Amino acid sequence: MNLPVALDVENAYKRIKSFVHQTPVLTCQSINAICGAELYFKCENLQKVGAFKYRGATNAVLSLTDEQKRLGVATHSSGNHAAALALAAKINGVKAHIVMPNNAPEIKKKAVAGYGAQITFCQPTLQARESTLEEVIKDTGATMVHPYNQWEVICGQGTAMLELLQQQSKLDIVMTPVGGGGLLSGTATYVKEKFPAVQVIAGEPANADDAFQSFKSGRFQPVVDPNTIADGLRTSLGTLTFEIIKSKVDDIITVSEDSIKMAMRLIWERMKIIVEPSSAVPLAVVLENKQPFKNQKVGIILTGGNVDLGKLPF
Amino acid sequence: MNLPVALDVENAYKRIKSFVHQTPVLTCQSINAICGAELYFKCENLQKVGAFKYRGATNAVLSLTDEQKRLGVATHSSGNHAAALALAAKINGVKAHIVMPNNAPEIKKKAVAGYGAQITFCQPTLQARESTLEEVIKDTGATMVHPYNQWEVICGQGTAMLELLQQQSKLDIVMTPVGGGGLLSGTATYVKEKFPAVQVIAGEPANADDAFQSFKSGRFQPVVDPNTIADGLRTSLGTLTFEIIKSKVDDIITVSEDSIKMAMRLIWERMKIIVEPSSAVPLAVVLENKQPFKNQKVGIILTGGNVDLGKLPF
Repeated sequence: MNLPVALDVENAYKRIKSFVHQTPVLTCQSINAICGAELYFKCENLQKVGAFKYRGATNAVLSLTDEQKRLGVATHSSGNHAAALALAAKINGVKAHIVMPNNAPEIKKKAVAGYGAQITFCQPTLQARESTLEEVIKDTGATMVHPYNQWEVICGQGTAMLELLQQQSKLDIVMTPVGGGGLLSGTATYVKEKFPAVQVIAGEPANADDAFQSFKSGRFQPVVDPNTIADGLRTSLGTLTFEIIKSKVDDIITVSEDSIKMAMRLIWERMKIIVEPSSAVPLAVVLENKQPFKNQKVGIILTGGNVDLGKLPF
Repeated sequence: MNLPVALDVENAYKRIKSFVHQTPVLTCQSINAICGAELYFKCENLQKVGAFKYRGATNAVLSLTDEQKRLGVATHSSGNHAAALALAAKINGVKAHIVMPNNAPEIKKKAVAGYGAQITFCQPTLQARESTLEEVIKDTGATMVHPYNQWEVICGQGTAMLELLQQQSKLDIVMTPVGGGGLLSGTATYVKEKFPAVQVIAGEPANADDAFQSFKSGRFQPVVDPNTIADGLRTSLGTLTFEIIKSKVDDIITVSEDSIKMAMRLIWERMKIIVEPSSAVPLAVVLENKQPFKNQKVGIILTGGNVDLGKLPF
């Protein structure tokens, strides 16, 4: 399988740089003291649409040919990727067709509609989503932009870590959560080539541990009915992301739901920023496994900040 | 009355720079669209101890003589100033004596104790706080650090706006909330001398409008029993801060409690950062008065992020 290289991530960064926020890197002495490590948090929760997904979506839209731009883009998603693709398309004058399950939260339907996307509702099953998307693409000629299992998306997501390493180049370990694996693949692609001494470690909820199982066994094992608060990490790896992760990631470590909630609350209370549960997974890994991170400089990507303020877990 | 000048703020910045976070400046296109203005938010909620107060406290501690450092610092406060002074003192090896009302929230008592300060509890009245502090100072020889009505504190707080203007120099208007007036005084001192074309406007809760009343009448009118959600703004101006504000501030505008809550929620939801109600007051001013801010570049200091996550107003 043909895999992207660091240069592809660098080219993606040149392409999207003027369209994305250069998000800040924050440190927190009290969290450092609790962990016994030096943590650098890259705040992609402060990215446009509140998530790193805007990087990959923007890179995908900007990589289209003129003819493709004229016909639009399409995806199925009920989460951050839908909003990211809708806004990235709008900003570039491209039509976005989004297939959403009819039980998606009202707030997400509104956000996507607010970015001017054409929404098609379907039954809330993966099968219905895929077949509806197929029809939309057949009708419109739009180009599919996958939430993670696509070269341009992976390279776009990798720019978050590229940017973190520009802001703080002295790191021993870098960490992301893993769901579909787009962010982790892009990160590993860039880091293992440009900073080979830096370890790439992913965190995953034990209740949705398909990436962990696949990584350890070397055999793709999709997740069935994951039950985790980290709603962004309920998806399984794709063929492309699995291939990259298998060959370039140093380790995947799973964590409990309680640790995720505790890490999330710690970030809210000590750092004064809003992160969604998925964002808290790498910190949960450090809290559960202090020894290997002791005195290490650790770069962590906080992936998103989209939560329903009326339904907090604390 | 002898008033500080911009050079004093600049000297304070040299003194404290390596001790404070250079907090990021964030922008938010959806809030800009709602307001019809270009807003630049200086995130002092991400400052150490979660508030700009750390700047003034640090400048006060670093301005002590060696003999004063040996004897320690003292203040009475149940809020951000107590934590700020406690940490600034600790970092510089100075003893901090904090007088707190015995009904202060447990979380604040813990925070101040956690920074190693010596806490003396008293009855929850201003009189008890002042007389207890007097005794503490008599017993220890500690130097009083006032939360706002003191030269070093005012100049320290002014460094937040100095830093914002380094990060974003093209501003038409700068805004802060006003409670005791330390941040507003420091801001006006720096801005009206170095950027005389920039307007300095403060926001204040209508339910605690002593600064507004005093500013408009030219006569000091302290607030009685203020009933506002913006707990950081329930104090009245001091003699020194009133003198500076009277001569250097362009306007003070009051806002309703509903506007403060709406602005606070907007910042949480759209910007993904945690701000306390006081921080939301300048944005509430813009939301209530769109015309004078139309198409203007406005710098706003988000003053703090210390809220009880169990008691949100939404």
